[in-house]
Amino acid sequence: MMERKTQIGICGYGNLGKGVESEIAKNPDMELAAIFTRRNTGTKSDVPVVRLEAAAEWKDKIDVMILCGGSKSDLPVQGPLLAGSFNTVDSFDTHAKIPGYYDEIDKAAKTGNNISIISIGWDPGLFSLLRLYSGAIIRDGRTYTFWGEGVSQGHSEAIRGIEGVVDAIQYTIPVAAAMERVRNGENPELTAREKHERVCYVVIATDADKKEVESNIKNMPDYFADYDTTVHFISREELKENHSKMKHGGNVIHMGKTGEGNSQVIEFSLKLDSNPEFTSSVLVAFARAAYRLSAGGESGARTIFDIPPKLLAEVDPAELVKALL
Amino acid sequence: MMERKTQIGICGYGNLGKGVESEIAKNPDMELAAIFTRRNTGTKSDVPVVRLEAAAEWKDKIDVMILCGGSKSDLPVQGPLLAGSFNTVDSFDTHAKIPGYYDEIDKAAKTGNNISIISIGWDPGLFSLLRLYSGAIIRDGRTYTFWGEGVSQGHSEAIRGIEGVVDAIQYTIPVAAAMERVRNGENPELTAREKHERVCYVVIATDADKKEVESNIKNMPDYFADYDTTVHFISREELKENHSKMKHGGNVIHMGKTGEGNSQVIEFSLKLDSNPEFTSSVLVAFARAAYRLSAGGESGARTIFDIPPKLLAEVDPAELVKALL
Repeated sequence: MMERKTQIGICGYGNLGKGVESEIAKNPDMELAAIFTRRNTGTKSDVPVVRLEAAAEWKDKIDVMILCGGSKSDLPVQGPLLAGSFNTVDSFDTHAKIPGYYDEIDKAAKTGNNISIISIGWDPGLFSLLRLYSGAIIRDGRTYTFWGEGVSQGHSEAIRGIEGVVDAIQYTIPVAAAMERVRNGENPELTAREKHERVCYVVIATDADKKEVESNIKNMPDYFADYDTTVHFISREELKENHSKMKHGGNVIHMGKTGEGNSQVIEFSLKLDSNPEFTSSVLVAFARAAYRLSAGGESGARTIFDIPPKLLAEVDPAELVKALL
Repeated sequence: MMERKTQIGICGYGNLGKGVESEIAKNPDMELAAIFTRRNTGTKSDVPVVRLEAAAEWKDKIDVMILCGGSKSDLPVQGPLLAGSFNTVDSFDTHAKIPGYYDEIDKAAKTGNNISIISIGWDPGLFSLLRLYSGAIIRDGRTYTFWGEGVSQGHSEAIRGIEGVVDAIQYTIPVAAAMERVRNGENPELTAREKHERVCYVVIATDADKKEVESNIKNMPDYFADYDTTVHFISREELKENHSKMKHGGNVIHMGKTGEGNSQVIEFSLKLDSNPEFTSSVLVAFARAAYRLSAGGESGARTIFDIPPKLLAEVDPAELVKALL
């Protein structure tokens, strides 16, 4: 029997969109239907490339729209707009603004009778999940999250949004001494600043004011203000030559006690050659869940915490029980 | 406002039951109501100790019964029996028999209008979850599970069920060379035997036949037949002296590729001072989920794959989003 494949739309054709395009091909139950983008550059797949303004015309031809724009300026506009017409999945990652974003999306998705799964990826995403599972299981314990060393797309994007900035890459670097203290079981109190530093490589326009750009980066709330941040101004060529890899990773470590003081350590780690491609892969798996929830008659916003894990897998639950349980 | 606490029953008062008893005290929304056991030994908590035969009388006084018996002989009988009268959570861990157990439990739980979450713990349990998430996300990849070095309760219990055996402890030991091959990215094909060995320390009755016991262990299907197993016969005193720690742990490693061959590694590991206490803690968290699903009007058997993660946490989903997403 040839079942109808889930029709996927990609909204935004940067690194994330290209990663989704590549990953869809590895999921036999899905098919790329169209790419929605402002850019006129060629796409790899032989599918219609549509201007975002015309998205509404595709309402009945797309089962799930995967939103691949940035959290700074794309998603706050596109998310609520598209949730009215499509099931959506996005990787909105401005932690402090997630509750507000959730409410807006929830309203739009309910009005449109769609499912929108927000803030999907690895953090927010899989790391959030591991914090939830480990904290709910070992109550007498504490969770530490370390990121990097690696490029944060969200932070790089945030810098690129600053006036005078042509391009930028931001590295998140865990403070080695802090990780050691956690692993030694010291159960330390650590501020954001004590756990990570941020190093930025920035290309600016010839007429831009370095001092002003640097200050705008270092004082940006949520993203940089709470960290020790170093800004290096480099040329476009240097950026391309030395900073085009997008490796990343990190660790969620939960340490706690059970019974009469038995130590229990739960650790989750990612080592990613490509941060955006990994996030793309997570988005694609959750697109499957969005479609299934919607097909089951549900609507509204969802987070990774709401999704029964079985909805991510292509195979039947009975098969999962046999193969993986 | 003082909310009513979820009333928990413990069925079986071995290591697992004692671990549950201790963990309930760390969950302010739960309360231990009674302990159901065949043993007459004293319990730590000041709650009624009830013979299993009288369990039915407690039908309306217990929200969730946590089944702490062994998978070899306790759960196959107690599981279906109690699922008819109570919401239940258990750690049934005989992998090959889970589908059949699921069907039996599902029938009983539906008849009794209860929720029964089966095969909860770390493997089956958290390790199963990580296999599901990582395999659904990185499709072009492979998952490896390594256990140990540590004591497997299920395997120790299985030995104890053999005629002539007084007591026993079984260590699962990962084969170091195999782990190295996986970490080196060799993507090897590994049989059960190539990944782990099993070492058993067994106390037998004075009139027992060593050869027969050893053969019964080594040829036991599911548990030992597919592994290189070593059996050491020791005295009761030696067992107590040298083998009373119940440390365990393991690693789930998923390695795969995205895009044009970018390597992505997902790893989950546990380092447990007390294997049974950790399993107990997982059972308690899923008891919360069982109660909530039942209160929402659902019934039947469930596995860890079915449970929305948010149901494990004591706090509201909105709070989870703020604190953990």
